[in-house]
Amino acid sequence: MYPVSPKSQAYDRAATMFSPDGRLYQVEYASKIVEQGTLGAGILYDKGVLFATDKKISSRLILPESIEKLFAIDDHIGAVSSGLVGDARRLVQFARQEAQENAIYYEEPIEVETLVKKVSGVAQYFTQYGGVRPFGVSFIIGGVDRTGSRLFEAEPSGALAEYKAIAIGKGKKEAMDCLEQKYKDNLSKEEAMDLLIEALKKGTVADKTKLEHSRLDAAFIENAKPLTRFSKEELKFFLAKNKTA
Amino acid sequence: MYPVSPKSQAYDRAATMFSPDGRLYQVEYASKIVEQGTLGAGILYDKGVLFATDKKISSRLILPESIEKLFAIDDHIGAVSSGLVGDARRLVQFARQEAQENAIYYEEPIEVETLVKKVSGVAQYFTQYGGVRPFGVSFIIGGVDRTGSRLFEAEPSGALAEYKAIAIGKGKKEAMDCLEQKYKDNLSKEEAMDLLIEALKKGTVADKTKLEHSRLDAAFIENAKPLTRFSKEELKFFLAKNKTA
Amino acid sequence: MYPVSPKSQAYDRAATMFSPDGRLYQVEYASKIVEQGTLGAGILYDKGVLFATDKKISSRLILPESIEKLFAIDDHIGAVSSGLVGDARRLVQFARQEAQENAIYYEEPIEVETLVKKVSGVAQYFTQYGGVRPFGVSFIIGGVDRTGSRLFEAEPSGALAEYKAIAIGKGKKEAMDCLEQKYKDNLSKEEAMDLLIEALKKGTVADKTKLEHSRLDAAFIENAKPLTRFSKEELKFFLAKNKTA
Amino acid sequence: MYPVSPKSQAYDRAATMFSPDGRLYQVEYASKIVEQGTLGAGILYDKGVLFATDKKISSRLILPESIEKLFAIDDHIGAVSSGLVGDARRLVQFARQEAQENAIYYEEPIEVETLVKKVSGVAQYFTQYGGVRPFGVSFIIGGVDRTGSRLFEAEPSGALAEYKAIAIGKGKKEAMDCLEQKYKDNLSKEEAMDLLIEALKKGTVADKTKLEHSRLDAAFIENAKPLTRFSKEELKFFLAKNKTA
Amino acid sequence: MYPVSPKSQAYDRAATMFSPDGRLYQVEYASKIVEQGTLGAGILYDKGVLFATDKKISSRLILPESIEKLFAIDDHIGAVSSGLVGDARRLVQFARQEAQENAIYYEEPIEVETLVKKVSGVAQYFTQYGGVRPFGVSFIIGGVDRTGSRLFEAEPSGALAEYKAIAIGKGKKEAMDCLEQKYKDNLSKEEAMDLLIEALKKGTVADKTKLEHSRLDAAFIENAKPLTRFSKEELKFFLAKNKTA
Amino acid sequence: MYPVSPKSQAYDRAATMFSPDGRLYQVEYASKIVEQGTLGAGILYDKGVLFATDKKISSRLILPESIEKLFAIDDHIGAVSSGLVGDARRLVQFARQEAQENAIYYEEPIEVETLVKKVSGVAQYFTQYGGVRPFGVSFIIGGVDRTGSRLFEAEPSGALAEYKAIAIGKGKKEAMDCLEQKYKDNLSKEEAMDLLIEALKKGTVADKTKLEHSRLDAAFIENAKPLTRFSKEELKFFLAKNKTA
Amino acid sequence: MYPVSPKSQAYDRAATMFSPDGRLYQVEYASKIVEQGTLGAGILYDKGVLFATDKKISSRLILPESIEKLFAIDDHIGAVSSGLVGDARRLVQFARQEAQENAIYYEEPIEVETLVKKVSGVAQYFTQYGGVRPFGVSFIIGGVDRTGSRLFEAEPSGALAEYKAIAIGKGKKEAMDCLEQKYKDNLSKEEAMDLLIEALKKGTVADKTKLEHSRLDAAFIENAKPLTRFSKEELKFFLAKNKTA
Repeated sequence: MYPVSPKSQAYDRAATMFSPDGRLYQVEYASKIVEQGTLGAGILYDKGVLFATDKKISSRLILPESIEKLFAIDDHIGAVSSGLVGDARRLVQFARQEAQENAIYYEEPIEVETLVKKVSGVAQYFTQYGGVRPFGVSFIIGGVDRTGSRLFEAEPSGALAEYKAIAIGKGKKEAMDCLEQKYKDNLSKEEAMDLLIEALKKGTVADKTKLEHSRLDAAFIENAKPLTRFSKEELKFFLAKNKTA
Repeated sequence: MYPVSPKSQAYDRAATMFSPDGRLYQVEYASKIVEQGTLGAGILYDKGVLFATDKKISSRLILPESIEKLFAIDDHIGAVSSGLVGDARRLVQFARQEAQENAIYYEEPIEVETLVKKVSGVAQYFTQYGGVRPFGVSFIIGGVDRTGSRLFEAEPSGALAEYKAIAIGKGKKEAMDCLEQKYKDNLSKEEAMDLLIEALKKGTVADKTKLEHSRLDAAFIENAKPLTRFSKEELKFFLAKNKTA
Repeated sequence: MYPVSPKSQAYDRAATMFSPDGRLYQVEYASKIVEQGTLGAGILYDKGVLFATDKKISSRLILPESIEKLFAIDDHIGAVSSGLVGDARRLVQFARQEAQENAIYYEEPIEVETLVKKVSGVAQYFTQYGGVRPFGVSFIIGGVDRTGSRLFEAEPSGALAEYKAIAIGKGKKEAMDCLEQKYKDNLSKEEAMDLLIEALKKGTVADKTKLEHSRLDAAFIENAKPLTRFSKEELKFFLAKNKTA
Repeated sequence: MYPVSPKSQAYDRAATMFSPDGRLYQVEYASKIVEQGTLGAGILYDKGVLFATDKKISSRLILPESIEKLFAIDDHIGAVSSGLVGDARRLVQFARQEAQENAIYYEEPIEVETLVKKVSGVAQYFTQYGGVRPFGVSFIIGGVDRTGSRLFEAEPSGALAEYKAIAIGKGKKEAMDCLEQKYKDNLSKEEAMDLLIEALKKGTVADKTKLEHSRLDAAFIENAKPLTRFSKEELKFFLAKNKTA
Repeated sequence: MYPVSPKSQAYDRAATMFSPDGRLYQVEYASKIVEQGTLGAGILYDKGVLFATDKKISSRLILPESIEKLFAIDDHIGAVSSGLVGDARRLVQFARQEAQENAIYYEEPIEVETLVKKVSGVAQYFTQYGGVRPFGVSFIIGGVDRTGSRLFEAEPSGALAEYKAIAIGKGKKEAMDCLEQKYKDNLSKEEAMDLLIEALKKGTVADKTKLEHSRLDAAFIENAKPLTRFSKEELKFFLAKNKTA
Repeated sequence: MYPVSPKSQAYDRAATMFSPDGRLYQVEYASKIVEQGTLGAGILYDKGVLFATDKKISSRLILPESIEKLFAIDDHIGAVSSGLVGDARRLVQFARQEAQENAIYYEEPIEVETLVKKVSGVAQYFTQYGGVRPFGVSFIIGGVDRTGSRLFEAEPSGALAEYKAIAIGKGKKEAMDCLEQKYKDNLSKEEAMDLLIEALKKGTVADKTKLEHSRLDAAFIENAKPLTRFSKEELKFFLAKNKTA
Repeated sequence: MYPVSPKSQAYDRAATMFSPDGRLYQVEYASKIVEQGTLGAGILYDKGVLFATDKKISSRLILPESIEKLFAIDDHIGAVSSGLVGDARRLVQFARQEAQENAIYYEEPIEVETLVKKVSGVAQYFTQYGGVRPFGVSFIIGGVDRTGSRLFEAEPSGALAEYKAIAIGKGKKEAMDCLEQKYKDNLSKEEAMDLLIEALKKGTVADKTKLEHSRLDAAFIENAKPLTRFSKEELKFFLAKNKTA
């Protein structure tokens, strides 16, 4: 069942053990759960940053807003998670506390990059110490601060990178191909949203399920405005406009 | 005996170990005990939230009220558990303390969502740290607060979701099918109770044991009224009305 | 030797490990020691609660009263244990401290149910944390408080239930069958004692040893009176009356 | 070599692990070392309690009094150990401290039963927590307090029982058979000593070594007198009187 | 797959275990991840020290400056990392704190050698204590202090050495061969940069990817000037000048 | 290679694990290192106690006095060690501290027996707790206090015994046979030294190396005099007198 | 590959585990790394102590002084290490702190022997406690204090011995043979240096690499003068004088 077994055997039991070729298998396995997570994406546009995510609602009795994949960390910072939802919530809780403490101590909003590095530092810690497991979750973290609009990916290993547009979760490859081909600087918010919706559709096509507005969550952050979620009507509008598949 | 052994072997010994495909087997096994637990359900109605659970009394000498499956967490919040009863009691104890502390510090009742997230945070913690095992119990937690009537499911992994109607335990699938088909918004309390009883009957049909009032526990919460349990007479009445199997 | 080995293998080494079907083998094994323990029983009667237990004295040089199976926890609460005697004493010590502290802090006797839940909470803790083993003992805990006469069984898993009459230990099945058939509400103390003696005799029949007064211990608690042990003469009297096997 | 291996395999590696039939093998193995320990015995007589023990001196250069098998815990309490001598000394040290603290706090000598329960509580603790091993020693603990003359056996498992006469160590079975046959209440000190010597002789017969006064230690405790050891002359006298094999 | 397995078996599972020939395999495996890391290099020139590193940007949507391989530790100290980026960031954070604390306590900038020894001391600690893994990262650390221009390599084992020119990461051998052949004392900054670019090109040739300015990062430190990064134009200029492969 | 393997297998990995027959293999293995240690001996004489030990100097460049086998614990107490020298030094350090603290707290020299029991208590502790190994060293501890001249052996298990003459280390059997045959009470110091030298020679005969004064260390303690080492000349004198082998 | 495997199997995984013949394999393996370390030596001469060590410089770009094998611990104490350089630095750091604290508390320089025993005590600790590994380094520690010139070897096991001349590392046997043959008391500094150079040459002959001044480090300590390193010119002079192979 596990084709990697013969070669990884015995070196993949603990995050604190290197394999002979210098790999940390437990960290790689944690990333596997992200590859099967819900598809989320983020993009920069002329005035800010925009997030969207599929929420994969499995029952009509579920209240979609309770499936949290898109979090407000602070007024000026948002995050999209993919992977274990419990793990995501713990790191979001940590991020919110850091943002609050920064606001209290320094009397100014925390910078997006500073926050991303703190979250990634916690993730790295869980890959180096015994008695715990790595976090099984990746984040897109973005926002607007005095340095401009910022958008990052933070991985279970503690690695991070800044992007103009980024997707995570199941279907990431298809969504990223779409973003790489079509992204341009200084898109308007509407153009950026169109591209994001298209990328999500490309990524969820393999799912054979239709990306409906009820399972979609999206929001944007612009300077001096707190994170704003799109209404159901707006989501319907953007989905209708897009002619992909 | 264990068909999953060959593929899960060695990756399922600790909650702190990922398998090569990114699964946490110990957390999945903890969920197995819930799938064999007693059937419980919750539902929203026009003025509040309603809970019912089978208690599976095995001896006429047992006092049914001592088999706790339906807990009052606070005046305005109730919970139904399924799984290990000792684990359930520990988490209920934690939830009650959190509710009390909230009432003391903020001088207002804790919100249902806040409480559910605290309980789920504890559950998640037990899936990421070594030297403990995950909780072998799921909860339906519901209540009425200043945001309205709320109803959640909280799982051993720390995952949670909000529902209009939800069932947990052995027979969940059959009970959920029933709820998905027949649930409507703004049911009256009596209509909601009828539906809940029907769902429980559907779920316990495979048991080949009759769902009698003596092994049933049910309660409701409405705004400004504390959790109120149905009397034996009321339970008999609802069971008699229902013509299912 | 161990027919369960092939299927339980490797999942039964620690209380903190679930098997693929969601079982906690170490907790089940702890219950095995109880099934081989001395037979004890408790019963409610019109004015209180009554306990009796076999003590299995193996030498005429042993002082029977030193074989503690029936403990006074507080004036108004008693307990019968079955399983590891050292484990039983540790939990009894804990229970007595809790009862004392309650009396000091609240200036009223602890309620039986409150105490049983505290004892069960400790037992549950030892099934969820590493570096310890579950308690290898079950208790019948009963007493009289302002809520009336109460009688509980507390198991190694932390599970508990309230009974009108209950037996634990080796021969439990036979003793329970007897109690289930013959128990009636509002027995007089003498009738209850007769039934308890009969149940113990049914349970110890398989032992091929005669249940003599010297290896029997029994006591009752009535409102406003502390736990009172039956004298040797009273035990002889009840044993003589009973014509079972 | 180890006939128990096939059935105990893998369940006997830690005191904190139950076997499928509810046994704690490590505790049983600790008892094995006691079964191979030096033979010791205690007995009640009309005015007090009497102890005797074989010390198995292996070299004429050893000072017999340095081989401690019979300890004064307090003026009114003595103990005979069998098993690991280092373990015995640690528990004796604990017992002496408890006796001293009791004397200071309550201004009266500790009761024998209280002390035995404290020692057994420590022994039980070492069978339930990881990272330690059970104590490999059993004790006969006896003395005279305001409740009369008392005599107990305390085992590695934390189990204890009160006796009129008791033997521990290698040859226990033969010595106990002798005591069971011949013990009577209200023996005089001399009669009790005769019986104790006979029991020790019966127990050490299998050793094919002669029980000489130089390897014997014996003492008695009577009300209001501290523990008194028999002189070499007295031991010779009692050994000479006894005609056993 | 792992040719080293038969000989290293069982001795390579923990950094705290020596093999029979005195090797610490886990530390060697940690070095393996460095051998696969990005290529970086440092060199002394007449007035200071110069760093350059390949950043291997994999997508046009990544902002190259977010891929941190060349860190400013303090105004007068810089570092190039190769290996796990999360591990690198943790040690850089530690180094920055040490530099700051030194500046506060002693009111003068920390010496490069002092700082390198502190970083290496942390790395060594993680090779000797259990429950953690060694750091999977090497550093080139250099700067200018009152002792002149200094340049060090710090390895996962805690080993360190001072160099006139040094390369780390994938392609180290080819880059070092180039530096060993062509390095001369008292190079001008431009000559040193030319040599560094040539060494990086030699090292990345095996990659079959062209070393473009967009994936290059370089900086220099001269006395009394803080670490200064080369602009994109300067990098383009140096890359164009160099005619290697 | 290890004939004991088949029977001890798996029970000899930790000092905290009993074998099925109640043995502590790790403690027995620790004693093995003592059986291969340097030969040392102690003896009582009319006015005090006398120690001698072989130091097995392997190179003429070693300063013999740096090979510590015979330690002054306090003015009135000395010790001879055999086994791991690092372990010996740690326990000697502990013993010296205990002696000093006793002198400060009680204003009188510590009794030899008290000190021996403290050292043995530490040794026992290291056989019962996990995460450490037993001490691989035995001691002869002797001295003169207000109870007279005292001489003890302390073993890795925490066992101790008092002797008139005792040997430890490689050749113990031969040396003890000699002492057992020839020891008499109230030897003069010179007679005692003659006997000790003879015993050491008997014990080192198997070594095929000659017991020269340069590798010998010896000392005596008499009342009111601190431990006094024999001079090289005195050692030569005693060696010359003795005609053994 | 590992001929010792069959016999050492399973007993060589932890420093805290004895083998059946009383060996501590992990400590022996730690010594193996020293046997492969750089060759160093020390010698006493008429007025002080002299150290020399090979540094094995592998690249012309390395600054030889950064390869630390010869450390000044205090003005009057020096040390030569062989083995893991990170481990060496940690113990040197500890030794320097001890020397400083001694100077502050007692207002006089620490004695060489006192310091060596403290370092060896730390090394021993790491062989007896779990969760760490032994130090993979040996030291020659020497100096001049009020007791004269002193020279010690300190090993990973915590063992130590004082020498007139001593070598450690790869080639120790050949170097020691040379020292044993030719060492005389009261050599002049120049004679001692000649002998030390000869010993190092004998020891590095197997290396087939020439012992050049650039990879050599040497120093001396004389009363009232701090540790003084030989200049390159002096090293060249001594190397040229010596005609060995």
